[in-house]
Amino acid sequence: MKFLLPSLILLLTMNSIVYSQSRPRELGVHFGVLPTGPLNAITDVAGVKVGHLTKIEGSTIRTGVTAILPHGGNLFQEKVPAAIFVGNGFGKLAGVTQVQELGNIESPIILTNTLSVAAGIEGVVKYSMAQSRNEQLQSVNAVVGETNDGYLNEIRGMHLSTEDVIQAIQDAKSGPVQEGNFGAGTGTVCFGWKGGIGTASRKLPESLGGYTVGVLVQTNFGGNLQIGGVAVGEKLGKYPFRDALEKSDGSCMIVVATDAPVLERNLERMAQRAMMGLAKTGGIASNGSGDYVIAFSTAEGLRIPHSSQPLSLQKAEFLGNEDMTSLFLAVIEATEEAIINSLFAAESMTGKDGRVVEALPKAQVLEWIHNK
Amino acid sequence: MKFLLPSLILLLTMNSIVYSQSRPRELGVHFGVLPTGPLNAITDVAGVKVGHLTKIEGSTIRTGVTAILPHGGNLFQEKVPAAIFVGNGFGKLAGVTQVQELGNIESPIILTNTLSVAAGIEGVVKYSMAQSRNEQLQSVNAVVGETNDGYLNEIRGMHLSTEDVIQAIQDAKSGPVQEGNFGAGTGTVCFGWKGGIGTASRKLPESLGGYTVGVLVQTNFGGNLQIGGVAVGEKLGKYPFRDALEKSDGSCMIVVATDAPVLERNLERMAQRAMMGLAKTGGIASNGSGDYVIAFSTAEGLRIPHSSQPLSLQKAEFLGNEDMTSLFLAVIEATEEAIINSLFAAESMTGKDGRVVEALPKAQVLEWIHNK
Amino acid sequence: MKFLLPSLILLLTMNSIVYSQSRPRELGVHFGVLPTGPLNAITDVAGVKVGHLTKIEGSTIRTGVTAILPHGGNLFQEKVPAAIFVGNGFGKLAGVTQVQELGNIESPIILTNTLSVAAGIEGVVKYSMAQSRNEQLQSVNAVVGETNDGYLNEIRGMHLSTEDVIQAIQDAKSGPVQEGNFGAGTGTVCFGWKGGIGTASRKLPESLGGYTVGVLVQTNFGGNLQIGGVAVGEKLGKYPFRDALEKSDGSCMIVVATDAPVLERNLERMAQRAMMGLAKTGGIASNGSGDYVIAFSTAEGLRIPHSSQPLSLQKAEFLGNEDMTSLFLAVIEATEEAIINSLFAAESMTGKDGRVVEALPKAQVLEWIHNK
Amino acid sequence: MKFLLPSLILLLTMNSIVYSQSRPRELGVHFGVLPTGPLNAITDVAGVKVGHLTKIEGSTIRTGVTAILPHGGNLFQEKVPAAIFVGNGFGKLAGVTQVQELGNIESPIILTNTLSVAAGIEGVVKYSMAQSRNEQLQSVNAVVGETNDGYLNEIRGMHLSTEDVIQAIQDAKSGPVQEGNFGAGTGTVCFGWKGGIGTASRKLPESLGGYTVGVLVQTNFGGNLQIGGVAVGEKLGKYPFRDALEKSDGSCMIVVATDAPVLERNLERMAQRAMMGLAKTGGIASNGSGDYVIAFSTAEGLRIPHSSQPLSLQKAEFLGNEDMTSLFLAVIEATEEAIINSLFAAESMTGKDGRVVEALPKAQVLEWIHNK
Repeated sequence: MKFLLPSLILLLTMNSIVYSQSRPRELGVHFGVLPTGPLNAITDVAGVKVGHLTKIEGSTIRTGVTAILPHGGNLFQEKVPAAIFVGNGFGKLAGVTQVQELGNIESPIILTNTLSVAAGIEGVVKYSMAQSRNEQLQSVNAVVGETNDGYLNEIRGMHLSTEDVIQAIQDAKSGPVQEGNFGAGTGTVCFGWKGGIGTASRKLPESLGGYTVGVLVQTNFGGNLQIGGVAVGEKLGKYPFRDALEKSDGSCMIVVATDAPVLERNLERMAQRAMMGLAKTGGIASNGSGDYVIAFSTAEGLRIPHSSQPLSLQKAEFLGNEDMTSLFLAVIEATEEAIINSLFAAESMTGKDGRVVEALPKAQVLEWIHNK
Repeated sequence: MKFLLPSLILLLTMNSIVYSQSRPRELGVHFGVLPTGPLNAITDVAGVKVGHLTKIEGSTIRTGVTAILPHGGNLFQEKVPAAIFVGNGFGKLAGVTQVQELGNIESPIILTNTLSVAAGIEGVVKYSMAQSRNEQLQSVNAVVGETNDGYLNEIRGMHLSTEDVIQAIQDAKSGPVQEGNFGAGTGTVCFGWKGGIGTASRKLPESLGGYTVGVLVQTNFGGNLQIGGVAVGEKLGKYPFRDALEKSDGSCMIVVATDAPVLERNLERMAQRAMMGLAKTGGIASNGSGDYVIAFSTAEGLRIPHSSQPLSLQKAEFLGNEDMTSLFLAVIEATEEAIINSLFAAESMTGKDGRVVEALPKAQVLEWIHNK
Repeated sequence: MKFLLPSLILLLTMNSIVYSQSRPRELGVHFGVLPTGPLNAITDVAGVKVGHLTKIEGSTIRTGVTAILPHGGNLFQEKVPAAIFVGNGFGKLAGVTQVQELGNIESPIILTNTLSVAAGIEGVVKYSMAQSRNEQLQSVNAVVGETNDGYLNEIRGMHLSTEDVIQAIQDAKSGPVQEGNFGAGTGTVCFGWKGGIGTASRKLPESLGGYTVGVLVQTNFGGNLQIGGVAVGEKLGKYPFRDALEKSDGSCMIVVATDAPVLERNLERMAQRAMMGLAKTGGIASNGSGDYVIAFSTAEGLRIPHSSQPLSLQKAEFLGNEDMTSLFLAVIEATEEAIINSLFAAESMTGKDGRVVEALPKAQVLEWIHNK
Repeated sequence: MKFLLPSLILLLTMNSIVYSQSRPRELGVHFGVLPTGPLNAITDVAGVKVGHLTKIEGSTIRTGVTAILPHGGNLFQEKVPAAIFVGNGFGKLAGVTQVQELGNIESPIILTNTLSVAAGIEGVVKYSMAQSRNEQLQSVNAVVGETNDGYLNEIRGMHLSTEDVIQAIQDAKSGPVQEGNFGAGTGTVCFGWKGGIGTASRKLPESLGGYTVGVLVQTNFGGNLQIGGVAVGEKLGKYPFRDALEKSDGSCMIVVATDAPVLERNLERMAQRAMMGLAKTGGIASNGSGDYVIAFSTAEGLRIPHSSQPLSLQKAEFLGNEDMTSLFLAVIEATEEAIINSLFAAESMTGKDGRVVEALPKAQVLEWIHNK
């Protein structure tokens, strides 16, 4: 019951942040030049909440849901500026066009498996309809992303329900985020090793505004893994086209949060940079990869009320183009680190058909990194 | 008497739908210069099938599902080139990014109401998984569009099930298409009158290739209605901002089929022209409108097999840019006519909260048209 | 007699252009429901200036430049929010990606002929470098659109110079705009008749904000002309594919100005609606058409300074999505009218190789319109 | 006269490939898993020609033009499938929308400095008009990219002429490509060091199709330089935001050529991957960066004739989506290597106002790489 171990540890220690002991940064892996936030997690962006529903049952169910809430209030009534960038559109992300057209997100963001997008949408719809003040709601744009955990998970069974999705939303909380085999990362595979959920953050120095950028990833993709400057994929003999069949397919969902006052156009530019962070880990956005970045700002002054007086002007204070570069760098660094964090956190897992996906051999990787 | 034949058949074989007698073209409304196909319907494109599931129950349920099948075979195994154009993205259309990335559609296209997109996706997933040859399917991109029928329909009840969606798919057939209050058009409202499903087609003369273009619409939008050169909206006193509250919101889903051998880039260009046909009816793509165009080619030589030998070259013969203009014109004309057809076919309906939406006063409109 | 005043002034101050007497609206052609601004021109948007450089020389040169200035100050130092929508990208519009990325325009907008885009760019660069306060300018994004006047104009001669472009910019002024065979419209052809420059505007009622939308077009495209509900193209025997060679190619540049406080995302949505206005005239965006819409807001509170303190927040008040629909309608109506205005203003012209393009037979058209 | 040295060496030795002695790969820097083509240059793609016009005059002119020809024939008459991806649109790249709309390139690709785009367009127009068979040409889409060399070059002087551009086109040839301070790379700066032109290629093994991918870059951007796994930027004290003023602005033009039979949609996907190669060098696509990727296929079976019989079907054999991943990997690897190659090839340069930009301290960098 290998995969119960991390939950056990978490169970015992969730009051304080214990996972950091095995996070690559603490183990000496170097990631860029900007400092992290206190948790090095997307929840360093004040107000952001994350909830996991992890479903591990029998020998074949290895899946889950992760919900990311831009703020803890009523998102339908108080929307946040948002954007989506499509790194590679081989995926089923729901809600894309409305985010792009209207520039906002009005519901919790859901990550899950490929065949459970419908459950994700229905969960968001029912959750939103049930919230107080939403009695008149007849339309809500659910943003539901996915990657395919069908190697370990009996995905055709569609084992996630609407209720599971609502549970993940309701369980969302601030503070440390469980990484690895939790929520939507339960059954994922990354660079040939066990992937999962990862998160990281950057806090800009005050001279650059002091803003925080947080990233959460669901890693399920392939490529030529590189960590801390070491060509880990090549050294471990796992890289694309090592044999004719290996295509390194797979997907990555990336959620970027910031408290910087950034409107949707510049949020889209931030989202686009997340793919550059993914590239630094060796990801290649293969044909079969569904790589998407969802970015939003939690800045309170930029909230968009669902109902307002006609012709009332929206008053906002926001950063101009010229101040975006430091935020771009923060996105790149936090995305790279979040992906590597997912690999370090994920434990080996046995799933469908007795298949085993091993955890990244961290000791070996660290030795290479330290001796380079 | 080529044109009466299909109507005759309809007269004999359907209980109540003798739509062709009252279609605007037969009543003297003029639409452009290109000839129609024999049915003046999307099903004039050989192989295309349409299925409606109409749900009218009690005093509050007025909704449904319409399924459009690009061909009658296994769409997952034999995908068709496709594109989607976003006229105004205030909508929940699922499946957009994969169509845009990969250039194909691999499942039935579903139209339904805004809060039933999840049912639509789940229906497509289950239908696809259940098809023979799809036993290994772990991922399928469901294209599910919607408009909001919540004025007449108790939409928050989410009265459509996965089974309803599958039923619509299974009922899909060639031949005449029911217009008006059927399927996804059951509860829709257009230009302030009862909208619904409409369809039309164009058959290019042989000198222009002889190709057929078919369009199907789900009309639920507003604007300043114009029919046959007459400013009907203004004459009837229904137009945008006639009073301060009227905003003419609403949506339109448009599906464009062609047997012309056109690849995805030029299909996208065709899709974009459908919005020009909508414009000719007086539609304005208001802020709250979800206006989308899904276009595909049924040309057999362009089918994309799900599985093929690695590195086997796709052999295709397709039209170049220079031959697209006549297809653009066909899309514009057929879209305009399909929308007007939906208004002529839809009958007055009473729904939720005793609300009544009247049918377009056709006699009055025709009088204006004929006397202009 | 508010409307006669501008014409009277024009009568007294221009040598030959008394356009307002023959503008279709005054002649009884009906265009939508919203009122126009005082000039029914893009210059109704306060601060917008238009300049024409018309080059008619010998028997073969029939071309020109039109410059549109969003405001009369230093555009590089005080940029305006802007967006560009591509209706059909068979064209050479320069400056597109920077407008889309940064959301602003920082120089005069230039319209000219296809082979003179380089002159347009160089003119803008030199004009911008020479302005006071721009001594350090090393980069400026010139937005230069074109249509192909090569049927009447000996376009390969590249008869427009950088100086011509600068002249058009310097001649730009407020007030009435010359329509027809002026500036970039000198040698253009539209629906088989002489096209040119056209302009129109809408002024929203105070209940809708009282904002003004102005449109200027350079018409050089084809299709199935429709005016005031009359199928003019068909009645006159000029419509697409009337014979196998006729493809109705050609282009249309559309510039949309507004004083409404609208940021770039919603400006892009407004720009997209201009193609719907073009559709209402019978335009079809044929394969060979370069159809582009450039939209900007002159709202002073939305100006973007070239230089600002790092991290200083941009303070802005702007309209939300919910208030856009009336502006969409204004764009559609003004674009339709501007195009028809260009046709009514343009006079017959003889050009290259003795080719003659006739003016639209206005008397005939008006008779049809009035007797319908 | 430091900068004459490399030309001298080249002058003496251009018959054979001598530059490879100092290319990073030969010096032991490791780049991915795929083998290079024989020249490790874009010209490994058969038929591709590159021409430089280098203008170094007096103490202030440090600029140039680089022309890339997809094939040596008449590009207007035989267009190639092509796509453009915008990594960050702060740039003046001309010709974008037509490439995206029509899916092809019909002229030489020009790279130059920001204020010489007009010269680039005019050069392409005049070159194209003058080619035999193009006597009727009245419209040609020039694709002209740029980066800003204004730190070393007196860019406001606009020292490049139309004739310079034509010269670069006419000098284009197969074989080795001069890297570093040549052509459009003459005055550029990258990661704080002297940038320039770089090139690299990958040749897929026969089991993956045996196709070649070639990349050419004009490097003028910033970020946190990483070479061969070493954080060179940090070690050398040159990285973004090291002090409050440093913003690492700048641009990168990337041209991707392949002989693989790939249509425009998949070429766009390949183009998008080039930004992932840039990311691996530490580039961050800062706000002020104009990062563009132009991709084309030279496959002869995919050429698009300018004139063809109406309705004649284009016959083509091309790779499907499923075979793209190896080409994606090739683009990523070749782009990373091309950028690093530009840094190794560029020599220190003194320019405008006596400014000096040093060459990358290669010995130091190599020592770090070898001792890691």
